[in-house]
Amino acid sequence: MAKVMTHMCMSLDGFVAGPDDDPGELFDWYWVGDVEVPSARPDMTFQVDADSAAVLRELTSGCGALVAGRRLFDITDGWGDEHPVGAPVVVVTHRPPPDDAAGPLPRTTFTGSVQEGIATAKEIAGDRDVTIASADIIQQALNLGLVDELCISQIPVLFGSGLRYFGELVGDHVMLDDPIVVPGVRALHLRYPVRR
Amino acid sequence: MAKVMTHMCMSLDGFVAGPDDDPGELFDWYWVGDVEVPSARPDMTFQVDADSAAVLRELTSGCGALVAGRRLFDITDGWGDEHPVGAPVVVVTHRPPPDDAAGPLPRTTFTGSVQEGIATAKEIAGDRDVTIASADIIQQALNLGLVDELCISQIPVLFGSGLRYFGELVGDHVMLDDPIVVPGVRALHLRYPVRR
Repeated sequence: MAKVMTHMCMSLDGFVAGPDDDPGELFDWYWVGDVEVPSARPDMTFQVDADSAAVLRELTSGCGALVAGRRLFDITDGWGDEHPVGAPVVVVTHRPPPDDAAGPLPRTTFTGSVQEGIATAKEIAGDRDVTIASADIIQQALNLGLVDELCISQIPVLFGSGLRYFGELVGDHVMLDDPIVVPGVRALHLRYPVRR
Repeated sequence: MAKVMTHMCMSLDGFVAGPDDDPGELFDWYWVGDVEVPSARPDMTFQVDADSAAVLRELTSGCGALVAGRRLFDITDGWGDEHPVGAPVVVVTHRPPPDDAAGPLPRTTFTGSVQEGIATAKEIAGDRDVTIASADIIQQALNLGLVDELCISQIPVLFGSGLRYFGELVGDHVMLDDPIVVPGVRALHLRYPVRR
């Protein structure tokens, strides 16, 4: 059955960006290997080590829809309606779509709540997975019990401060199963199933 | 050459204890396996999986002295002058040793600063490693550039809030090498060399 996953690159001390939104060294691993992994965008090809390549291909081919927050959508200009993963994007936002979008966004859907966003993404994804790619949406979805698996590319760096992957929890600790572990170059890839 | 290491158990989201100092599920892995690893205390024997046992033996046998903060010393009553690792303890504190210590503490040394504490621990350790075991001391030592290797037993749980393993940094990001990775049961053991 299709899973609801998360994927972000995180510093060892838990940050997905600095205080100024700068991802710093978190994306270095995408460009330090000699295996080419094409993205869905003709202008972007990843260059990763062989183990990271297998992880990247699996994440990309398995993803049927992405869920993102409005902040990430705005920062990236909606990826020009063409996210590198190649999947349609569902944006969770209370504001209307941007007026100044460069053109129509046929592969982007706007929804008003996290529950609605994930439900819409599941419909779009069919039997493929839904991947949540914004920290604030991940935090809300975890608190709502809607996440099946946490995927982390853990980067060998300490940031000290910034935007956390995981935030406050409204209830008890969230228990996870032991992870599937793939050590790559400049990224340790971890997949933790969430316990129910 | 002897290294200055750190070792703590950390939740996936970066905490070494809850807001109330409760370690929660962080020490579960010490008791879920069928390999017995004796501690230095006759009343405490760990029961871990085979891979974790190798990590635990290496950490224990390699440790020539521990550095701890006063808070941890007070919480544990100074481990009764007999830390499970079996090494002498150096406590960094601005306050005098406790009056109400149950007896003399021949294996515990009190020093006034992190630099002094680590220097004293190095003298005691000789050609074995120094292990820092308190988050606040680790944070200060990292900011002083005094740490050679970060060792983390990363536990499959999210805490949401609490006491962080790594804190604010005074300068740039701290770059690490890719880790040595040992997946255990209920703990993923990671050793990250600190880049100079």
